[in-house]
Amino acid sequence: VIALRCQPAGEPATEVRIGDGAGAAFAERARDRRVFALVDEVIAELGLQPATPPNWVWHPVRGGEGLKTMAMAETVLRAMVQAGCDRGSVLCAVGGGTVGDLGGFCASLFARGIELWQVPTTTLAMLDSAVGGKTAVNLPEGKNLVGTVHPATLVVVEPAFLVCEPERNYRAGLAEAIKMGLGLDAELFALLERDAAVLRQRRDRAEWSTAFVGVVHRSLAAKIAVVEQDLRETGRRRLLNLGHTLGHALEAWHQGSVPHGECVARGLWFALDVARELGAMRSEEIERAGALLRRYQHHRMPLLMPVDELMAFVLRDKKVDSGVVHFAVPTGIGTSEVRPLEPGLLRRLLERE
Amino acid sequence: VIALRCQPAGEPATEVRIGDGAGAAFAERARDRRVFALVDEVIAELGLQPATPPNWVWHPVRGGEGLKTMAMAETVLRAMVQAGCDRGSVLCAVGGGTVGDLGGFCASLFARGIELWQVPTTTLAMLDSAVGGKTAVNLPEGKNLVGTVHPATLVVVEPAFLVCEPERNYRAGLAEAIKMGLGLDAELFALLERDAAVLRQRRDRAEWSTAFVGVVHRSLAAKIAVVEQDLRETGRRRLLNLGHTLGHALEAWHQGSVPHGECVARGLWFALDVARELGAMRSEEIERAGALLRRYQHHRMPLLMPVDELMAFVLRDKKVDSGVVHFAVPTGIGTSEVRPLEPGLLRRLLERE
Repeated sequence: VIALRCQPAGEPATEVRIGDGAGAAFAERARDRRVFALVDEVIAELGLQPATPPNWVWHPVRGGEGLKTMAMAETVLRAMVQAGCDRGSVLCAVGGGTVGDLGGFCASLFARGIELWQVPTTTLAMLDSAVGGKTAVNLPEGKNLVGTVHPATLVVVEPAFLVCEPERNYRAGLAEAIKMGLGLDAELFALLERDAAVLRQRRDRAEWSTAFVGVVHRSLAAKIAVVEQDLRETGRRRLLNLGHTLGHALEAWHQGSVPHGECVARGLWFALDVARELGAMRSEEIERAGALLRRYQHHRMPLLMPVDELMAFVLRDKKVDSGVVHFAVPTGIGTSEVRPLEPGLLRRLLERE
Repeated sequence: VIALRCQPAGEPATEVRIGDGAGAAFAERARDRRVFALVDEVIAELGLQPATPPNWVWHPVRGGEGLKTMAMAETVLRAMVQAGCDRGSVLCAVGGGTVGDLGGFCASLFARGIELWQVPTTTLAMLDSAVGGKTAVNLPEGKNLVGTVHPATLVVVEPAFLVCEPERNYRAGLAEAIKMGLGLDAELFALLERDAAVLRQRRDRAEWSTAFVGVVHRSLAAKIAVVEQDLRETGRRRLLNLGHTLGHALEAWHQGSVPHGECVARGLWFALDVARELGAMRSEEIERAGALLRRYQHHRMPLLMPVDELMAFVLRDKKVDSGVVHFAVPTGIGTSEVRPLEPGLLRRLLERE
């Protein structure tokens, strides 16, 4: 089991444990406290519940963006009161990014904030969203428009949970690792190149697990290095939005029928095009990044939707600040920077895409 | 205009301006930013709107505990998106404690937190709730069970707004100043004794205004001294709950038909009884505190409700932590301390009340 620690200035620390058996960390921490487990029903059906001690309350939910509403948050918060939770209780979110987003949101609001544990059970959540403290629900007007910053105190990554994940989501999730490698960590990028066959095919459990734990480790370490400097996304943390400006707009346009990671992968292609346009990255590096995306079956699909509609989504996103879009541009393999783009320029670039 | 500043470690500062003309602080701060004003309709009807510049969006709401729901928060958050708010916008809450609680809650959640201004227009909000950063909405299970800590950057106290306030609420609101004097500041207590006639009768506008601004000044200064040391209520801030353990339970039992301040005043009588029971305060000081409560027409009314029901409310309150009730006990005029009380003891004390 690999251990990482995230310690932004003036905030509680997050302990991260990655690998088979990482869940052993719960026993000593739970003790007499009430633990309210918000669990994706797919995981709940695995039958872990009988093994959990009596101070755990089990609350199954159906994962997916449809879960992330203010109304569902209220349902969960009421269930927490009825289960006898108080300020000393813990909310433990067991599921993918949507369960983590809702669980973190509820933990931050219950009694003005209680302790949060994250147990990501999808590729995307393991590689990215379980660490960093962002919580969110959606509005009809757009995704993640409402939320808080409330880091987990404990994150447990057990690769075995991925047996439940559909192949398409697994592959899409790896796009976040590619994002982290391209924007922040050349070694992670090289690891993804080297282990591409093992990671994609998943033939041998032990071989895959070793490679996957390595990628989770480096992805989360890269994210932690950014988050420790800028938890509240006023500067450097915007680098983590690489691929997400177009990615979020596509995801909204498709109304959730296309996995987040596939939208991010298409957004990475756009970010590479922007980098080329701005002369920010050497063209052989752009080719190398494109080749890695293709190796994970993320191709540069044509954009079929009207640019007007995409721009409407982009301008409603949280990356906009007093009218300027903070756009993350790759500047090499493992490096990137944030450029303020006028909406007019972004629109012209999207039209050419 | 009196200026105060609240600066908890590692948090943005709150500027507080108290007195006629304090609102002049807005002009320079608003400039080109979008300001979303959440305004109690009673205030909106005063006709201030035509004077506000075009970057202000005016959103009237009906003040009262009924406003503080998750559903209403969603309505406001959606209106903010539709009004074109982004991360650089400001939410300005103009109204009593309930408008401030909902407005602060929405400001803390919109795009994971935007700047908040508070313009309290009731006695209670001016003396207490506009400063300190607590935001809240209610659940059917209890009041303020959900919320965040999100201090305003600017608080403007214009005493003139109190012309709209019903006499009963004005008198009830002064109970929070008595709480602050009794628990934290002997000089404020003496001021409330000295100016009781002027404050209660409000005959002469100028004389009243001077006395009232003085009381607001000392009340907020006393609160700020506590909040700067403990914004998130893990210790010393629990002193501010003096009178609120029983107060909140009474308020919940009456389902909002009795003003908050009247419930707190009754809670102060109970806290004095607990102090006597525990031998925590000299009996002449207990008498002096009782006399001040009576001068503001807060009498020691009989408790007519079943102790079982009161205890159920008390145990659901946020002041409970892993089963123990953190109870603020006065120990003299201007001093107090927090004692962990077993629910069994608290119950016996309530039965004698």
